[in-house]
Amino acid sequence: MGLYGGIEAGGTKFVCGIGTGPDDLRAVVRFPTRDPQSTVARAVAFFRGHPQRVHSIGIGAFGPIDPQVGSPTWGHITTTPKLQWTHTPIAAMVTEALGAPVSFDTDVNAAAVAEHRWGAARDTSTFVYLTVGTGIGGGALVHGRRLHGALHPEMGHVPVARAAGDTFAGTCPFHGDCLEGMAAGPAIAARWGQDGSTLAPDHEAWRYEAHYLSLAITGFILALAPERVILGGGVMKQRHLFPMIRQGVRDRLNGYFRVPAIIGAIDSYIVPPALGDDAGILGGIALAQEAVP
Amino acid sequence: MGLYGGIEAGGTKFVCGIGTGPDDLRAVVRFPTRDPQSTVARAVAFFRGHPQRVHSIGIGAFGPIDPQVGSPTWGHITTTPKLQWTHTPIAAMVTEALGAPVSFDTDVNAAAVAEHRWGAARDTSTFVYLTVGTGIGGGALVHGRRLHGALHPEMGHVPVARAAGDTFAGTCPFHGDCLEGMAAGPAIAARWGQDGSTLAPDHEAWRYEAHYLSLAITGFILALAPERVILGGGVMKQRHLFPMIRQGVRDRLNGYFRVPAIIGAIDSYIVPPALGDDAGILGGIALAQEAVP
Repeated sequence: MGLYGGIEAGGTKFVCGIGTGPDDLRAVVRFPTRDPQSTVARAVAFFRGHPQRVHSIGIGAFGPIDPQVGSPTWGHITTTPKLQWTHTPIAAMVTEALGAPVSFDTDVNAAAVAEHRWGAARDTSTFVYLTVGTGIGGGALVHGRRLHGALHPEMGHVPVARAAGDTFAGTCPFHGDCLEGMAAGPAIAARWGQDGSTLAPDHEAWRYEAHYLSLAITGFILALAPERVILGGGVMKQRHLFPMIRQGVRDRLNGYFRVPAIIGAIDSYIVPPALGDDAGILGGIALAQEAVP
Repeated sequence: MGLYGGIEAGGTKFVCGIGTGPDDLRAVVRFPTRDPQSTVARAVAFFRGHPQRVHSIGIGAFGPIDPQVGSPTWGHITTTPKLQWTHTPIAAMVTEALGAPVSFDTDVNAAAVAEHRWGAARDTSTFVYLTVGTGIGGGALVHGRRLHGALHPEMGHVPVARAAGDTFAGTCPFHGDCLEGMAAGPAIAARWGQDGSTLAPDHEAWRYEAHYLSLAITGFILALAPERVILGGGVMKQRHLFPMIRQGVRDRLNGYFRVPAIIGAIDSYIVPPALGDDAGILGGIALAQEAVP
C-alpha cells in the first residue's frame, strides 16, 4: 500500500508527516517556521530521508493562499502579512524538489478534509471547521467539496458585535475588533495580561470568549447551514468553553433555525475535532490522497 | 421544444409562469397568497388553463422549507411563522394535481439558479443572492450547486453590530435587531414612520441601511468567499444604496480580503439582479428544467 506525505505549513511551526491515516502515521517531524527557503528545505530533507517514497504530498498552509487549480499563482502563499512569505510558490518548491504531485489548500480546509474522512464530520457533507489559536481560521466542506470561491473563507475576520460594556480595542491589525481581534489567543493575553491557559474556568475572560465565538458561529450557521461545527485550536482546549458556546448559539438563534441537531442535540452539533492535534497533519495526508489520479 | 412551469411562492404573493427562459415567458399570473388550499388551487388552475402542458414545475418558496431530496418532509413549507402554512406539503399538492414532476427550493435559491443560468452570475460558480424587501433572504450557489446543509441558508437573521447611537429595537419577532429586524422594508417603515420608497436619497435612513447591509455582506464574503454578491428585492430598487454598500464593504474589509474583484472592480462585484423582478419566476422555471431527467 502506498504512502502519502503531509505538510501542515503553519505561521509559527511546520509539521511534516508520512503515512496513510490516523492509525498509520509512520513518521512526524515538527520545526519552527523561518524563511521560506530554509523551512521548505527542511521539509524536503525529511521526506528524502525516509526509507520509502511517498506517492504525493498534501500541503495545508497559512494564508491567504491561491488554491484555484489552473490559476497562474496556484500553490502560492500570496498576500500574507508574514512578509518573508509573501508570494511564495510553496507547492512548486515542494513538487520540484521531490518529484511528487502536490495538492494544496488552506490549513483549515485541509483539517476539514481529515475530519470528514476520519473524524467528527464523517456523517456530514456540509460543515464548518474553525480553529481558535494564535489566529482564528475557518474552513468548510460544502456538499463534500472544499469551499473556494473568489478566494477561500477567512472566517476569523468577520465583524462581531461588542459585548455590552466591552471597551477592549481588539488586536487585529486590519480590523481591530473583528472575531480574531477580540477572541484569538493574543487577544485574550492582551486583554488580561496573561495567557488564556493560565486563567481559571470561572474567569470572566471566558464569558467574553463565548460571547464572540457564539455570535460568529451563529452567523456561520445562518449563512452556510452546516450539519456540524467543529472547533479546534489551542484556545478550544479549554473544554468548559463548549457548553458556554452551545448555549450562546441556542440563545441567539432563539428557536428560528429549527434543525433537530441544534434544537435537540447541540452537544453533538458543536464539537471538538475527533483527530485532536493531528487534524492538521492528517489534513495534509488526506489532501495528498486526493492528488493521486 | 418543451415548456416548463415556475411558481414563485411568496409570503404575500404567488407568481406563476410558463416558458423556457427570460426571452420566452409565455404566460405569467400574479395573485395574493391566502390559505394553502385555495392558493395552490389557483396556481393549478393557471397551469391547467394553458393550452400546452408543461414538462415539469419548479417551486421557489418562502420558508423555512425542507429542500432535502429523500427526506420524508421534502417539499414541505415547514415551521413558518405564517401559521396557516405550517407543514404544508406544497410540492406534493402541485405534483398530484398536475401529474408533473416538481423541483423545490427556497425562493432565493431559485432566484440564484436563474441568475446563474441567465443573469448576473453567469460567469461564476460560487455566489450569494440576497433579497431585501418585506423580509431579507439569502441563497447561494457553491461550486454551481444550490447550498443546502442542515437546512438552507437563513442569511436575513444573522446578528449585526448596531450603528453607533442607534437605539431602534428592531422588528424581528425572533431576534429583534438581527439584519432583517434592522434593515428589511418593515424596519425602515417602523423606524421612520413612512415607507422607504418615499424617503429622499439623502435621508439618513439610507446611512443606517448601508451600515447593516454592508456589515452582513462583509460577513458573507468572509464566510463563503463568493465570486459575486447580487442584491435584489424592493428595498434595493433604491439604486443609490449600491455605492454606499460597496464603499461600506471595502471599508470593513480594509484591504484584508485581497480579491481583484473587490479591490479593483467592486462595481461589478456587488450588483443588482440582471433579471430584475423576473428573477423569482425564472428561478422556478430554471428549477423545473433541473427536474427533468
